[in-house]
Amino acid sequence: MKPRIAIGVDLGATTVKTGVVSSAGKILYQNKFPTNAQSGPPAVLKQIETSVSEALTHIDGKKAAGIGIGSPGVVDDDGVVKSPPNIAHWDEVPLARQLQKIFRRMRIRVENDANAAAIAESRFGAGKKFDNFLFVIWGTGVGGGIILNNRIYRGPSGGAGEIGHCSIDYNGPECNCGNRGCVEAYIGQRYLSRRTAEKLKSRPDSKILELVNGDLSKLEPMYLAEAAQKRDQLAREMLVEAGTLLGVAIAAVMNVMDLRVSIIGGGVSAAGGFVLDAIEQSVKSRVLKPLQSDIRVLQAQLGNDAGILGAAGLVL
Amino acid sequence: MKPRIAIGVDLGATTVKTGVVSSAGKILYQNKFPTNAQSGPPAVLKQIETSVSEALTHIDGKKAAGIGIGSPGVVDDDGVVKSPPNIAHWDEVPLARQLQKIFRRMRIRVENDANAAAIAESRFGAGKKFDNFLFVIWGTGVGGGIILNNRIYRGPSGGAGEIGHCSIDYNGPECNCGNRGCVEAYIGQRYLSRRTAEKLKSRPDSKILELVNGDLSKLEPMYLAEAAQKRDQLAREMLVEAGTLLGVAIAAVMNVMDLRVSIIGGGVSAAGGFVLDAIEQSVKSRVLKPLQSDIRVLQAQLGNDAGILGAAGLVL
Repeated sequence: MKPRIAIGVDLGATTVKTGVVSSAGKILYQNKFPTNAQSGPPAVLKQIETSVSEALTHIDGKKAAGIGIGSPGVVDDDGVVKSPPNIAHWDEVPLARQLQKIFRRMRIRVENDANAAAIAESRFGAGKKFDNFLFVIWGTGVGGGIILNNRIYRGPSGGAGEIGHCSIDYNGPECNCGNRGCVEAYIGQRYLSRRTAEKLKSRPDSKILELVNGDLSKLEPMYLAEAAQKRDQLAREMLVEAGTLLGVAIAAVMNVMDLRVSIIGGGVSAAGGFVLDAIEQSVKSRVLKPLQSDIRVLQAQLGNDAGILGAAGLVL
Repeated sequence: MKPRIAIGVDLGATTVKTGVVSSAGKILYQNKFPTNAQSGPPAVLKQIETSVSEALTHIDGKKAAGIGIGSPGVVDDDGVVKSPPNIAHWDEVPLARQLQKIFRRMRIRVENDANAAAIAESRFGAGKKFDNFLFVIWGTGVGGGIILNNRIYRGPSGGAGEIGHCSIDYNGPECNCGNRGCVEAYIGQRYLSRRTAEKLKSRPDSKILELVNGDLSKLEPMYLAEAAQKRDQLAREMLVEAGTLLGVAIAAVMNVMDLRVSIIGGGVSAAGGFVLDAIEQSVKSRVLKPLQSDIRVLQAQLGNDAGILGAAGLVL
């Protein structure tokens, strides 16, 4: 039996990346095109078409199992993509149907990008050994996906996994979403950067300042991760504090859903084991007794490839 | 075709109640025996046997679909009941297997009591119209069950639904479970009674004092509900505040699991529509935009019958 392959598309606000993926989770080829997100849905669709068509020329006559697309926004069961942030004029677009018209003989599946990354970790990454886990993406914002019995839990309308909007303080800071005290409002870019900027006033020796060339408006959680890797003390403190808060939300979800494993992806998770340790310690100290001894918080393994791999995983 | 019937057992710390239930969710007959919880598992098992055997004499030769049992504690897939609070010497008991030995020809199913009540509301009560909802029991503590696609979501080890231990303030009061700021630590008996007792000092005209005969140590959320029904202002204020806090935890679960409906049972929920309104308003103000317009918070319909009905529902 020949190894099966599939096309995986990682649709982002800046770039469309398409890969040819083996059933073992190897990216055999990949390309990258600008999304042209400011030009609206037809232009974006054109870029997806270009990227997929180009990738298809690299499959050497082998038969692809189909095309999977990971997209920002809420994706319903019919592959309709709703309100992806940072793509202009995109309210509701029946992406699966439109792509089916272009690639008539291919099987098409569309999934939310965080869910796709969760699927990737489940099939090919840190989640391979676990039937059930909570996947968290911690970058500019905080998103996630839930794997139950080795399948993505999408929820009744495809919106599940929004752990970033678990409130960890009902009286806490306002979040963009309208709620108060969402964990994203503590550890997402805006708040974490602001808190770090304040602390930097009394810690002018921090490497963080070098990384942003002294321009605090450029401060992103990613730079904290980078500075922490260079053993910057302030960056480590900030990330331990943030990880501890993330653990509060993860513990709540684990208690409600009876889960024991969380896999952390996104730029910040790459800062180092100390962040994962901080999250795990926080979760362990907060979950119900029967869960405590089995708690595992692990780093995602697939990094930037998770989008393409998870998308391909939809049809493999 | 004859209407099917089943035996439903509601195992509580004080009483064992067994009912003969029709497939339409009608309790055709029920009895009640003391649990003898202080005497340990064999004595409790004996009481279940007595109660079920007695109920079986009332089924008039009709064939029962089986025996369902709703039990406190975590119940695993094999019907092993772990650490039910308030039953002495009960660590892990294979309740399903032991009952099978006694009632050899009957189908036996055991489920956690909050899950059984959620199943009852789904099959016969306020949840009939909804495929997916979060069921909350608000009484002495705060528990719950999650219905997905008209089935109970048990989680990998049967422990799902513990919404009472969602932290709504990571820095909040300590909960019995070891976590901080659990919603149960705000609206469960201990904390809510303490807060009410404090307020009563400056509100000596409240009907709550009458209900507990001036003995504040007797204060339970149930009395708040009763006083509120008698239009006591302080009781209403306390319950609105508590309902608003419960809404914070419900909103977090809805965001993560993509749910829109919550059904509230337990003694406190009977206080009146104003409590449900307070919960609903809180949830609506906090969930993500795509969920907002569909949010429904409803009162459970089955009251004390939910235990028997849900247990019977396990085998109907």
